Amino acid sequence: MNEHWAKTGAELVEPLVAEVARLGGLAEAQIADCVDAITRRDVPLAQALIARDPKLDRLQADIERRAIELIASHQPTGRTLRRTVAAMKIANNLERCGDLARNIAKRTLVLSGAEPLTPLTRSIDRMGRLVASRLKEVLDAYSASDLEKAAGVWMRDDEIDEHYNSLFRELLTYMMGDPRTITPGAHLLFVAKNLERIGDHATNIAEIIHFEITGEADIGERPKWDALNAPSKTALADIAAAPKDEV
Amino acid sequence: MNEHWAKTGAELVEPLVAEVARLGGLAEAQIADCVDAITRRDVPLAQALIARDPKLDRLQADIERRAIELIASHQPTGRTLRRTVAAMKIANNLERCGDLARNIAKRTLVLSGAEPLTPLTRSIDRMGRLVASRLKEVLDAYSASDLEKAAGVWMRDDEIDEHYNSLFRELLTYMMGDPRTITPGAHLLFVAKNLERIGDHATNIAEIIHFEITGEADIGERPKWDALNAPSKTALADIAAAPKDEV
Repeated sequence: MNEHWAKTGAELVEPLVAEVARLGGLAEAQIADCVDAITRRDVPLAQALIARDPKLDRLQADIERRAIELIASHQPTGRTLRRTVAAMKIANNLERCGDLARNIAKRTLVLSGAEPLTPLTRSIDRMGRLVASRLKEVLDAYSASDLEKAAGVWMRDDEIDEHYNSLFRELLTYMMGDPRTITPGAHLLFVAKNLERIGDHATNIAEIIHFEITGEADIGERPKWDALNAPSKTALADIAAAPKDEV
Repeated sequence: MNEHWAKTGAELVEPLVAEVARLGGLAEAQIADCVDAITRRDVPLAQALIARDPKLDRLQADIERRAIELIASHQPTGRTLRRTVAAMKIANNLERCGDLARNIAKRTLVLSGAEPLTPLTRSIDRMGRLVASRLKEVLDAYSASDLEKAAGVWMRDDEIDEHYNSLFRELLTYMMGDPRTITPGAHLLFVAKNLERIGDHATNIAEIIHFEITGEADIGERPKWDALNAPSKTALADIAAAPKDEV
């Protein structure tokens, strides 16, 4: 290995990491805004958020391009290579978080004329804040290269799943009780799913941080609540269990 | 540029492209199976499909690792670099198609005890076959480096969106008509959304092929039906419009 080239690669990766942190900040803001927009039915906020999304797309594309150029021009190895690949992959996850926030904003526009389902608004707000705090935590772990903090986010993924499952059931209960809530309820099911998937991206980022620091792909074993493996109670309970989508 | 190295990079990328084609074949099979599984409520088929998913994940991870090694060790440029990056990105999209097929299979397990909603089963089957055919087409375009075929897939993305929107409305109508269909209907809403997103990945792959061949990021302009920009008719029509999620 050529020491000079390797050192230059290690130096070049840091501005890339800073760009990822910047993209992280933008994604955090989009998520906070989409939660506010949907819970307050705030149309201008939703529109502003949607208008900002292309900025995140461009930043992600730029990070990807620079990471590939860095790999091609400096042939980094070991931690520097992993740090470059991690930057590219984390940017990818953050861009998708931005897309999910934009999806929620779009549903805000669709729902703006509907009666608010007040108790559910509170549940969505709670889940949104939980998801936003997980993303913040994992971005802190990334900036500090803090393995333990990343592992903490990864371990608590099931809390978000539990929130999602309870929100899913809550929404179905409303929809069964009053047919007028079926259409807004269906949109809120997707909002809940989008929030859950933002949580999945936070978990993915935790795994990428672990890989970057340790070079190992597996972060560990975690006891995972799985709706499909849970003992069945009644046919209805069975069918109401929301399976975990991982995409 | 070192001619010898460049040539070797161009040679090395072809086995990688072949691996992507293999992953494409596996993803196609998973999608065909998930459509059969959900429409026939075929639990063993769904279980077999879920069990096969880790194979796709491993193949994608392997393609990514090899692509990065190729870039680091051979510093490809121009078309060879784009072909390497495209292989990595297409593999990423295919792996996510596999995840979406697995999500549909999981919902098949959840729904296996429910009454089939027969007319909707047919709509889901139709949409599933359309999406599978688009993925097949774009993989053919990839194997043949066929720019026109890729553009064809990209141009007709809105057909899948229209299917999705009509299925969304159809499901809500059933759910409003009979509260017992609300829970299975909610799961089928997610199945429809998963199919639509497989279609989005086919479109993404078309864009990546375009980028690989031409070096340009923009494939063109397409008139896109957007539920949010459609003129509003009634409050209900407005709210029933399913916004397009892009993630």
